Amino acid sequence: MSLIRGHFEKDADKLAREYSESISFDWRLYSYDIAGSQAHARMLSRTGIISNAEGELIIKGLSQIKEEITQCRSTFKPELEDIHMNIEARLGEIIGTAAGKLHTARSRNDQVALDMRLYTKDAIEKTLAALRELRAALLDVAEAHREVVLPGYTHLQPAQPVLLSHHLLAYFEMLGRDAARFKDGLSRTDVMPLGSGALAGVTYAIDRESVARELGFAAVSRNSLDAVSDRDFVIEYEAAAALTMMHLSRLSEEVVLWSSAEFGYIILDDAYATGSSIMPQKKNADVAELARGKTGRVYGRLLAMLTTMKGLPLSYNRDLQEDKEGLFDAVDTLLKTLSVYPGLLRTMKVDREKMAQALERGYILATDLADYLAKKGLPFREAHAAVGRLTAFALKEHKGLLELSLDEYHRFSPLFDADVLQLNVAAALSARNVPGGTAPDQVNRALTEARQVLGE
Amino acid sequence: MSLIRGHFEKDADKLAREYSESISFDWRLYSYDIAGSQAHARMLSRTGIISNAEGELIIKGLSQIKEEITQCRSTFKPELEDIHMNIEARLGEIIGTAAGKLHTARSRNDQVALDMRLYTKDAIEKTLAALRELRAALLDVAEAHREVVLPGYTHLQPAQPVLLSHHLLAYFEMLGRDAARFKDGLSRTDVMPLGSGALAGVTYAIDRESVARELGFAAVSRNSLDAVSDRDFVIEYEAAAALTMMHLSRLSEEVVLWSSAEFGYIILDDAYATGSSIMPQKKNADVAELARGKTGRVYGRLLAMLTTMKGLPLSYNRDLQEDKEGLFDAVDTLLKTLSVYPGLLRTMKVDREKMAQALERGYILATDLADYLAKKGLPFREAHAAVGRLTAFALKEHKGLLELSLDEYHRFSPLFDADVLQLNVAAALSARNVPGGTAPDQVNRALTEARQVLGE
Amino acid sequence: MSLIRGHFEKDADKLAREYSESISFDWRLYSYDIAGSQAHARMLSRTGIISNAEGELIIKGLSQIKEEITQCRSTFKPELEDIHMNIEARLGEIIGTAAGKLHTARSRNDQVALDMRLYTKDAIEKTLAALRELRAALLDVAEAHREVVLPGYTHLQPAQPVLLSHHLLAYFEMLGRDAARFKDGLSRTDVMPLGSGALAGVTYAIDRESVARELGFAAVSRNSLDAVSDRDFVIEYEAAAALTMMHLSRLSEEVVLWSSAEFGYIILDDAYATGSSIMPQKKNADVAELARGKTGRVYGRLLAMLTTMKGLPLSYNRDLQEDKEGLFDAVDTLLKTLSVYPGLLRTMKVDREKMAQALERGYILATDLADYLAKKGLPFREAHAAVGRLTAFALKEHKGLLELSLDEYHRFSPLFDADVLQLNVAAALSARNVPGGTAPDQVNRALTEARQVLGE
Amino acid sequence: MSLIRGHFEKDADKLAREYSESISFDWRLYSYDIAGSQAHARMLSRTGIISNAEGELIIKGLSQIKEEITQCRSTFKPELEDIHMNIEARLGEIIGTAAGKLHTARSRNDQVALDMRLYTKDAIEKTLAALRELRAALLDVAEAHREVVLPGYTHLQPAQPVLLSHHLLAYFEMLGRDAARFKDGLSRTDVMPLGSGALAGVTYAIDRESVARELGFAAVSRNSLDAVSDRDFVIEYEAAAALTMMHLSRLSEEVVLWSSAEFGYIILDDAYATGSSIMPQKKNADVAELARGKTGRVYGRLLAMLTTMKGLPLSYNRDLQEDKEGLFDAVDTLLKTLSVYPGLLRTMKVDREKMAQALERGYILATDLADYLAKKGLPFREAHAAVGRLTAFALKEHKGLLELSLDEYHRFSPLFDADVLQLNVAAALSARNVPGGTAPDQVNRALTEARQVLGE
Repeated sequence: MSLIRGHFEKDADKLAREYSESISFDWRLYSYDIAGSQAHARMLSRTGIISNAEGELIIKGLSQIKEEITQCRSTFKPELEDIHMNIEARLGEIIGTAAGKLHTARSRNDQVALDMRLYTKDAIEKTLAALRELRAALLDVAEAHREVVLPGYTHLQPAQPVLLSHHLLAYFEMLGRDAARFKDGLSRTDVMPLGSGALAGVTYAIDRESVARELGFAAVSRNSLDAVSDRDFVIEYEAAAALTMMHLSRLSEEVVLWSSAEFGYIILDDAYATGSSIMPQKKNADVAELARGKTGRVYGRLLAMLTTMKGLPLSYNRDLQEDKEGLFDAVDTLLKTLSVYPGLLRTMKVDREKMAQALERGYILATDLADYLAKKGLPFREAHAAVGRLTAFALKEHKGLLELSLDEYHRFSPLFDADVLQLNVAAALSARNVPGGTAPDQVNRALTEARQVLGE
Repeated sequence: MSLIRGHFEKDADKLAREYSESISFDWRLYSYDIAGSQAHARMLSRTGIISNAEGELIIKGLSQIKEEITQCRSTFKPELEDIHMNIEARLGEIIGTAAGKLHTARSRNDQVALDMRLYTKDAIEKTLAALRELRAALLDVAEAHREVVLPGYTHLQPAQPVLLSHHLLAYFEMLGRDAARFKDGLSRTDVMPLGSGALAGVTYAIDRESVARELGFAAVSRNSLDAVSDRDFVIEYEAAAALTMMHLSRLSEEVVLWSSAEFGYIILDDAYATGSSIMPQKKNADVAELARGKTGRVYGRLLAMLTTMKGLPLSYNRDLQEDKEGLFDAVDTLLKTLSVYPGLLRTMKVDREKMAQALERGYILATDLADYLAKKGLPFREAHAAVGRLTAFALKEHKGLLELSLDEYHRFSPLFDADVLQLNVAAALSARNVPGGTAPDQVNRALTEARQVLGE
Repeated sequence: MSLIRGHFEKDADKLAREYSESISFDWRLYSYDIAGSQAHARMLSRTGIISNAEGELIIKGLSQIKEEITQCRSTFKPELEDIHMNIEARLGEIIGTAAGKLHTARSRNDQVALDMRLYTKDAIEKTLAALRELRAALLDVAEAHREVVLPGYTHLQPAQPVLLSHHLLAYFEMLGRDAARFKDGLSRTDVMPLGSGALAGVTYAIDRESVARELGFAAVSRNSLDAVSDRDFVIEYEAAAALTMMHLSRLSEEVVLWSSAEFGYIILDDAYATGSSIMPQKKNADVAELARGKTGRVYGRLLAMLTTMKGLPLSYNRDLQEDKEGLFDAVDTLLKTLSVYPGLLRTMKVDREKMAQALERGYILATDLADYLAKKGLPFREAHAAVGRLTAFALKEHKGLLELSLDEYHRFSPLFDADVLQLNVAAALSARNVPGGTAPDQVNRALTEARQVLGE
Repeated sequence: MSLIRGHFEKDADKLAREYSESISFDWRLYSYDIAGSQAHARMLSRTGIISNAEGELIIKGLSQIKEEITQCRSTFKPELEDIHMNIEARLGEIIGTAAGKLHTARSRNDQVALDMRLYTKDAIEKTLAALRELRAALLDVAEAHREVVLPGYTHLQPAQPVLLSHHLLAYFEMLGRDAARFKDGLSRTDVMPLGSGALAGVTYAIDRESVARELGFAAVSRNSLDAVSDRDFVIEYEAAAALTMMHLSRLSEEVVLWSSAEFGYIILDDAYATGSSIMPQKKNADVAELARGKTGRVYGRLLAMLTTMKGLPLSYNRDLQEDKEGLFDAVDTLLKTLSVYPGLLRTMKVDREKMAQALERGYILATDLADYLAKKGLPFREAHAAVGRLTAFALKEHKGLLELSLDEYHRFSPLFDADVLQLNVAAALSARNVPGGTAPDQVNRALTEARQVLGE
C-alpha cells in the first residue's frame, strides 16, 4: 500500500501502477531531489517548524541515501512510483518517524518542479560548456587553415570563392547564437518554486528566499499556481536544443558532402568514420549522419512537450510527468552530439588541392566580372546581362573565364580593358573587404574577435 | 578491433563509438534477428551456397544464443556496436570459423531492414489485439448501460440528449478506423527485404521467395535500393499510432471531465485513480491524464522520423539508425495505453442520477421545439428564431423549457399546440430515429452490429 | 445581425467576428456545399419533408448561386461567417421564404463534415492522378536510359554500380506505396455524414442512403457523435501527403546533388532551373530546392491538425474549423509538387560520361572481390577482411582495384586466380541477378512490370 | 524574359514558374523592401558608388512605388517572381536606366534577409504591445475581483481555495515570460545583413554601419555566409509564439470549462460567444475554442521551418523561401489571438455564487486539516493519513468536512481541539501567507507589483 493512498480501499491495478510509475526514469533526479530536500529541511529547522535534531537527522539520512544511490547500493521500488517517494520511504527506514516531517510545508508538485529546475540549470551549464568547446574547435581549425580557399556555394552551385576559415566561422556564429539562447532561457529557469505547495502556497511561515540562496537560485517564483504548472523552461531548453541540432545538421550535411568522393574536400580520421560490413573501401561519415538523423529526435521531443501542455487547465495535471523522459533525452542527445564533434573537426584532414581544382572548374569569378563592368559605369543589371552572355559563350567554347582573350571579352562589352586578365581568385577574395566579408583581412579580424569572445 | 574495420588504422574515438553504438536499444531485435539469420542460413544451405553441415551448425548456434539472451545469460559488448554484430561474434565463439559464412549474400542493410519489418509486423498484431480488447470493453460497458441518458455536448455545452451507449460507440467507431489503418499498413510492412544486399542485390543465386515463406512474409521487395532505405512502414505505424493516441486523448479528456466534481458522471475505481500527497480527499484520474499527456510523445516520435528521413539521398544512410528507439517507444506507449484502458472502463461506476440532473439543467430540448414548429410548416430558420426568443424568455424567467405554460409558448408562435407539453427527453431520444442516430432502436441495432464486427 | 444569433442581445465584437469568420478560406468549398445541399433538398422533397415545388425552387436557386460564384459575380459577406451561411442567405434573396426550409433535418455540423469529405475525396482522386503521372515520367526516363550505369551510394559514398533505371524505379516503388496509402484513406473518407444533425441524429424520417448514392459515397456514417467530430480523414490525407513529400524531398536532394558541379550527373533544362541575380553562370535547381523545403510545410500541417484534435471532448468543437486551411494547403502543395516534377524529369539531360568517370574513381568493385573470395570458400568475414587490406594497399599505391596485378592480388589471398582480372562494372551488374537486384535482366523485368502496374 | 535569366535559352516552364513565384505572398514585405533599398541607395550615393543624382532619382522613384502599392494602384507580375524584382522593374519604368544601379553591391540574398529582419522586428514590437495589452486586461479583471474565491484545481479536482485574482495572475506571469522571450529574440533579430552580398561580401567600399543606423539596427552581421542563410530569428519568433499560444490554449481551456453549464463560473458576453444554428439556447465559447485550435497551427509553423532548415548546406538555398508564409501566418495568428482576448476578459461576468457553491461541494479544506495536525506535532505523513481516513468517513456519511462534530474529529485523532471547528475558506486562504501564495495580503502585493511591471 503506497504512502499516499490513505483512503483508497484497493490497491491500484497492476497495469495502472506500471503505467503511472516514473521511478524507471526519474531516478536520474535523485541528487537534485536530495539537495532540494536537504535545503528544505535546513530551512524547516532554522524557522523552528521542525526541531534542530529532526533537521539534522533528516539531512544526515538523506546524505546516506545519496551515497547509496551513487554507489548503486539501493534498489528502487516501482510500487513507490517515483524517486521522491522512494527516497522518503528509505529515509523512514533509516531514521524512523522523523522522516514523516520532511514533507511538511511541501507538496510533490513544488518538489518535482524544483528538481526539474535544478536538473535543467545543470543541463544548461553543461550545454554552454560543450558549445564553448565546439566553438573552440571550429576556431582552432579555422586558424590552422587561414590560407585555404574553398568554392563558396549557393544552391549547392559554386558561386564565389571564400576562405575555409570564413566558412567555419559561420558555424561559430550560429553556435554563438545558440549559447545566447540557452543563457536567456537560464534566466527563466533560475527560479525557485518551493513554497508553492500543491498549488496555493503553504500554511507555514517558511523562508523561501533562504532556500533559494542555498540552492543557488537567482529568484523565487511569484505565483504558486503558475509555479507548479510551469514547464516553459523545459520547452525552452528543447527549443534551443532543436535550433542547435538544426545547425549541427547543416554542419553534418557538409561533412557528409565534403567527405564524398565527388567533393573530396576533407578526409575524416579513421576514429570518426565507419567501415561497411560488405564494402571495405568505404569510409563513411557515420558520426555526421547520426548527428543529422538525431536532429529529428530532438525536434520530436520539443513538439511532444508542446503538445502535452496544450490545453491543460491550471494547475498541476499528471500529464506533466511526460516532461522528464523528453527533456533527459534532448539533453543527452544534444550533449553527446556537441561532444563528439570537436574531435571529428580537429582530426579531419583538409584537401586543399581538391578545393583548388574545384575553384577552377566553375565560373566562380563571374560576379567579379559583372562588378568590374559596373564599376566602369555600366548599370549593374546590364553588366550582369553582359557577363551572362559571356559565360554562356565560354561554356560553349569549353573555356574557363580566365582562359578568354581580351578580344573575346570585347565581344561582350567594350568596357573590358587589359586589367580584366589579372582577375583571379586571390583578387576576388581580397575585393570582398567589407565587415563580415571573406577578404583575408576581414577574416583575420573576425578570427581575433572570435578568440576574444571565447576568452570571455 | 571491430570485425568490420579491416583497413582502419586506429580504433574509433571512444566518444564516436559511444555515439554510434545501438546495442543499448537494438538488442530488443534479437529474436527477429536470429529468426531471420536462421531462415537465411537454411536457404544458403538449401541452395548449396554453404554446406548442410555449416548450415546446421549455424542454426544450432543461433538457437543457443537466443536461449542465452532470453535467459539473460549473455552480455552485450558495446564495442561490437549493434545486436547483429554481437550475435555474429558470439556465434563465432560457439561454432568457430563457420560463423563467418552466415553473412554470405547478405548485408547489414538488408538484415536490419528485415529485423525491423519482423518487429513491426509483430507490433501490428499486438496493436490489433489490444484495439480489439479495448473495443470489447467499450461495447460491454455500452451494453451494460443501455438505458442511461447523458447530455450530448457540442462546444462543451449541453446540446441534445444522447444515450451513453451511443456516446461510447463513437469511440468504438474511432478505434475501428484505427484498426483498419494498422491493417492497411501491415500490407506494406509485410514485404521481405533480404537479398537486397547493401543496396544493389547480391551476387549469389539465392532463393528469396523461400526465405519469405519461411518467415511468413506475403511478398519480397521489388527494388533493392528502395528496400534498404525504406522506412515508410515505421512512419506509417507511428502515424496510425498518433491517430489512435489522439482518439485516446479525447476519451481521456472526457474521463477527466466526467470524474470531476462538477460533472460527476463517473466514479473511477480506486485501482485506476491516484491520491494526492497533500490532499487526501482527491481521487485523480491520473491514468487518463497520463494517456492524454503521452499523446504528445507519440506525435513527437512520428515527427522525429519524418524529419530524419527528409532529404536523405538513396540508399542507406546511418541516419536511419534513428528509426529504432522512436518506433519502440511509440509501440510501447500505445500498447500500454490501450492495455490500461479496458480495466479502467470496466470498473468505473456511472452516476446516472448526476446525468439526469444535468439533463434538467440545460435547455436541451430546444432543437426539438424548433423541429416541432418546422414540422408544422414554419421554415426551419424561422422556427429556430422563434425558439431562440422563447429560450431567452425562459432563461430570464428562470424556468426550464418544460416548465413553460401553453400560454407562454403561444407568445412565441401560434403553431404550438397542447402536445408540445408532452415533449420530454425520452421522446427527444426516440425521435432521432435515423441510421447513426441516438434513438434506442438505432443504438440497439448498432450494438448488435458492433458485436458482430468484433466477432469476425 | 447574423441568422443564428436569435437570442443574443449585442452583435459580436468586431475583433471576435473577424477571428471567427471562415468565409475567407472556406469559400473554396462552395461547389461541394451546393452539391450537398441540392442532394439534401432532393431527398427532403422526395420524402415529403418539403414540397416538390420548394425542392425545385431550392435546387434551381442553388444552381444559380453556383454559377454566380464560379463566374466570380458574387460577393461574400464576412459578417455571414462562412460559406454555408453566405449561400443560404443568398438563396433567401433569390427564392424568398422557401430558402429557410433547406436547413431542415440538417445542422452545420453534419453539413461541414459532408463538404470536407467531398473536397477530400476529390483531392485524393487528383492526387492519385498526379502520382500516376509522375510515376509514368519516372518510368519513361528509366526506359530511355536502360544502359546508363551510376555509382550506387550508401552513406553518400560510392558503393556498388547500379543501373540508373534501377535507381529511378526505387522512386517508382515509393510513389506506388504513396498511392496505396491514399487509396486506403479513401475508404475511410468515402462515408456520408449527413443525417447526423448537430450530434445526435435528426428528428425527420430522412433517407440517408439515397443522399449517399446521389453524391457518390460508398457508405453512410454509423454514429452521429463520431460523424460530426471525426476529422481522421483530414489527418490521414495529411499523413499520406507528408510521406509523399518525404519521398519527393529525397528525390529533390538527389536532383540538387546530381546537378552540382561536383557530381554533374544531370543537367536540368533551363525551364526548370533558375539563374542568380548576381552570378550569371549559376543554374540552380530551385524547383527541387523548393520541393525539398516545402516538405516541412506539409509536415507542419499534419502536426497542426493532430495537435488541434488532441484532447477535445466529443462532439463538435469550434477548434475543428482549423481543419480547412491546413488541408487546403497540404493538398495544394502536394499537387503542385507532384505536377512540376514530370516535366523536370523528362527534360533533364543525363551525363553518362560523368557517371562513368565516377565509377572509375571509387573502389566500387570491392564487394565483388570479397564475394569472389567467398565463393572460393573463404568465410565471408575473412574474405571481407582480405579485400579490406587489399583496398588499403591500392589506396596507398594510388591505384584503382582493376589496375592491380595478379601478383599484387596474391599478396592478400592465394585464392585469387587470373579470372579476377576480368572483373568489371558490367560483370558486377550482371552478377546481382536476384529479384529486386540491379542486373539488367532483373531491371528489364521490373520495367515491364512497372509498365503493367501503370496500365491497370 | 525575366531580368536575371540572361544566359537561359528558354523561358521557365509555366508550372515551374508558378511553383517558384513568391510575389503572391512576399508582396507583404514591400514597405520593408523599399525602406531597405532607399537606405542602400542613400549609402551608395554617400560613398560615391553611384552619383547623388542617381541616388535621389532612385529614392524618389521608390517612394512613388511605395505610394502606388499602399494605395493598391499597382499590379504585381508573377513572371517577375518576387516583390524585389517587381519593385525593381517598376523602378525601371519610372526612372529608366538608373534603376539598374540600385542593385550595385547587393544581392537578393542579403536583400531578402534584410526585409525579413525588418518585418520580424516590427512583428516583435507588435507582439510585445499586444502581450502588454492582454496582461493589462488580466490585471484589471484581477483587481476588479479581489474578493472572489475559486476552488483551485489540481488534476481538475478541487484541491484548495484560491483567489480568482491569484489565478488570473498566473497567466500574467506566463505572458510575462513570453514577452521576455520575444525581447531576447529581438536582440538576435536586430542585426543588419546588407553587405553580405550573395554569400561572400561585396566588392565595393560600402558603409554597412551607416545603413544599419539609418534602418534602426543595433548591429551589423559578422559573417556573410551565415548572414544570408540564417533564419534563426524566424524560428525563434515561431518558438516563442508557440509557447505563447500554449499558454493561451490553457486559458482557453479554462474559459470553455468555466463557461460550461457544469462549472458555470463565468458568463461570456454575447459579443464573444456564438449561437448554434440548431440549438438556440447554446452560448458557445467559440473564440476560446478557436484560440485553442489555432495553437496547433502555430506549432505546425514552427515545426515546418525547423524541418525546412534541417540538413541544408551553406549558404543560401531556395528552400529558405519557405520562411515567409509560415512566419506571416504565425504572426497573424498570434496577434489576432492576443488582440481578441482582452475584450473577452473585460466583458465576461464572473458568477461568484457558483464558485462559492463549488467550494462547499468539495473537501477543499482537507490539506488544512492535515496541516492542523502536523502543526500539533504529528509527522506530516501521519497527519495526512489520519485526514485521509476522516475524509473517507465524511464521504460515506454524506457530510462536508465542516459539518463534522468535534466527537467525529476525535475518532481520527486526539489532537483535534475545538478550534478545528473554526476552520473555513477565509482562514485557509489567509494561512497561505508566503510569497507567491494565495493569501489576500500576498495577492494584493502581487497585484501592486504587476501594476508596476506594466508601468515600466
